[in-house]
Amino acid sequence: MPAVGEFDLIGRIRRRAALREDVLLGIGDDAALVRPPVDRILAISTDTLNSGVHFSHGTTAADVGWKALAVNLSDLAAMGAEPAWCTLSLSLPQADADWVDAFLDGFLDLAARHQVALVGGDTTRGPLSVSVTVVGALPFGQALQRDAAQDGDDIWVTGSLGDAAAGLALLSGHAFDGAAHSKLDSAARAQLEQRLHRPTPRVAAGLSLRGLANACIDVSDGLFADLGHVLEASGKGACIALSELPTSPALQQFAAPEQRWPLQLAGGDDYELCFTAAPAKADAVLAALQACETNGVRIGRISATPGLIALQPDGRAWTPPRPGYQHFEESAT
Amino acid sequence: MPAVGEFDLIGRIRRRAALREDVLLGIGDDAALVRPPVDRILAISTDTLNSGVHFSHGTTAADVGWKALAVNLSDLAAMGAEPAWCTLSLSLPQADADWVDAFLDGFLDLAARHQVALVGGDTTRGPLSVSVTVVGALPFGQALQRDAAQDGDDIWVTGSLGDAAAGLALLSGHAFDGAAHSKLDSAARAQLEQRLHRPTPRVAAGLSLRGLANACIDVSDGLFADLGHVLEASGKGACIALSELPTSPALQQFAAPEQRWPLQLAGGDDYELCFTAAPAKADAVLAALQACETNGVRIGRISATPGLIALQPDGRAWTPPRPGYQHFEESAT
Repeated sequence: MPAVGEFDLIGRIRRRAALREDVLLGIGDDAALVRPPVDRILAISTDTLNSGVHFSHGTTAADVGWKALAVNLSDLAAMGAEPAWCTLSLSLPQADADWVDAFLDGFLDLAARHQVALVGGDTTRGPLSVSVTVVGALPFGQALQRDAAQDGDDIWVTGSLGDAAAGLALLSGHAFDGAAHSKLDSAARAQLEQRLHRPTPRVAAGLSLRGLANACIDVSDGLFADLGHVLEASGKGACIALSELPTSPALQQFAAPEQRWPLQLAGGDDYELCFTAAPAKADAVLAALQACETNGVRIGRISATPGLIALQPDGRAWTPPRPGYQHFEESAT
Repeated sequence: MPAVGEFDLIGRIRRRAALREDVLLGIGDDAALVRPPVDRILAISTDTLNSGVHFSHGTTAADVGWKALAVNLSDLAAMGAEPAWCTLSLSLPQADADWVDAFLDGFLDLAARHQVALVGGDTTRGPLSVSVTVVGALPFGQALQRDAAQDGDDIWVTGSLGDAAAGLALLSGHAFDGAAHSKLDSAARAQLEQRLHRPTPRVAAGLSLRGLANACIDVSDGLFADLGHVLEASGKGACIALSELPTSPALQQFAAPEQRWPLQLAGGDDYELCFTAAPAKADAVLAALQACETNGVRIGRISATPGLIALQPDGRAWTPPRPGYQHFEESAT
C-alpha cells in the first residue's frame, strides 16, 4: 500500500480523467468550467455510498468506483437526461494509491461508457465514503418526473428485479428461507453478485423513453418503495401482477416465486427503471427499448384509487414482509 | 433527539429550501432540473467536511452547516463565478431531526445571503460527513484561474489571515508558543473562533475582480500552500513581505508577529482570496474591493524566478515550520 504525498492523489485522478469538448477546465483549479449545451436544461443529482452501509468492507475498490457512479447515472436515466459531467468526493482513512487506482478502474470504465467527464472533486481523510454529483442535459419539457403517472397507464420495468438483493443475501451468508443455494451453479451465483456490485444504469433506455413514458423512477430502494413514490407524487394507485415481475434465470435458480418476491419488491439496489406509459404507446415503448437493447415488461396498471396492490398468481393480494429499505436513507435528486 | 421516519429528513429539508426562478424542479425527484443562464459558462465545485477531520465533535450543527456551504462558495468566489445552485449529501450516524434542523439554520442562512438554491441531495446513514456541490455561472473567458499569474503582478490578499488557525488553537487547547492567551479579551477570542466556524466566502469580491485580477485562489490550506499552487500552475515565483500580512486586531492581541506568521502562512481555513493583478490596476482593484466592502492589501510580487520567499521585516528570509496542512487533503474543484 504505497502512501502518497499530499497533492498526489488528485494528480493520479487528473491524469486518468478523460475530458469532453464542453469541458473548458477540468480537475486542478478551484472549480471546473463547463459549457452547457444550447437550448437544454440541466439535471443534477447527488448520491453518497458509505462503507459498511452501501457496500461491505470486502467490496473491491473497482466495484465501489463503478457503483458510486452507476447509482448517480441511474438517477439521470430516470429523468431522461443525458449525462455530461461529474464530480467525485472521496473520503479515505489513508492515502492509499493502489486503492484509488483500482477505484478509478471501475469509476472511469463506466464514465467512458457514457461519455461522462470527471471534472473535479476532492479527496479527504475520513471513514471510507464516496460522494458523486452528476450533471446531465435534456430538452425543456421532456423530463420524466415522478408525478406524471396517469390513470390507466401501464406500469413497466426494465431488465430484471431482485438479482442484487439475492447477491447480497449470498455474500452476507444470511440464512434465507427457501433459497435453493445448493442448486445454484457458480455462473448464476456470479451473475447475482455482479448485479449487486456492477449495476447497469439504464441511461439509453431513459433517453429513449422521452416523449413516450409519463412517470419514471429508478428502482433503488425496491419496487414497492419506489413505485410508491410515483403513486404518492402522482396521487394515484396501482395494481401489479407478481407473475409478471421480470426475473433472471439466475434468480429463478436461486429461489421459488414466493421466496423471491420479497427480494424483487423490497430488496433494493436493482437500478432498473420503473415507468408508466399510456397503453396506446406500448408498441412504441417496446420498439424504443429494443433499439437500445434493453428488456422491458409490463407488470401492472395505474389506477385512480390510491394504494398499491400486488396480486399473486391465484388472485390473492400479497403483503410484503417489509416495505422497503429499513435504514433511514433518502435521495431526492 | 427525535428520531424520524425513513423519508422525513428530506421532507424537512425540502420544506425549508428556497428556490430560484431558474429552478424548474427542486428536491424530491430523481434529479433536480435547472435552467442554465444564457451566454454563460458554469463553474462546478465539490468539497466534503468530515467530523473529526474538518470540524471537531463539539462544533455546533449550525456552524457545520454554514461552513460546509462556505468552503464551496469560496471556491466559486476564487473563480469569479456567481453561485446559483447546490446539492447536499449528508451522512448521519442516526436520523436526528434536531441536528438536521440546526444544520439547516446555518446552511440556509448562508445560502440565502448568496441566493443559492439547495436543489437536491441525499441523506444516508454513516459517520457524520457533509458533502456539498455548488454550481455557479460566469461569462466565457473571465474565469480567475490559478495559472494566470504574470511576472511583475502584485500579490493581494482579502480580509485577514490567521484568525481561524488561532481560533482552532484556542479551542483545541494546544500549547502555543508565544501566544498571549492571558491577554486575550473575550471579544477577541470570540472573533477568532467565529472566523474558524463561520468563514466568509468572498463571493462579491471574486465577482468584482473579473477583468482586473490575473490569477486567483482561495486560501484554504494556508497562504504558503495556496499561493504555491498559483506559482506552480503559472510557472512563476514570488516574494512576499511578512510585515504586510493582513492581521486582525484580535490576532494581534493573540500573538506577536513571529508567533502568528505560522498561523497566517500555514494555518489554513482562512477562506480569503489570494490573487494577482498588474500594478497598473491597483487603484481599480482597491475601488472594486471597496465597492463590495472587502479589505484587500498587497503583500508581495510575482517574479519570473521560481520559488516563494517570505521576507521578515529585517530583510531576512523566513522558513515556515511546516509548509501547509499536513494530512492528505486535496481539493481540485
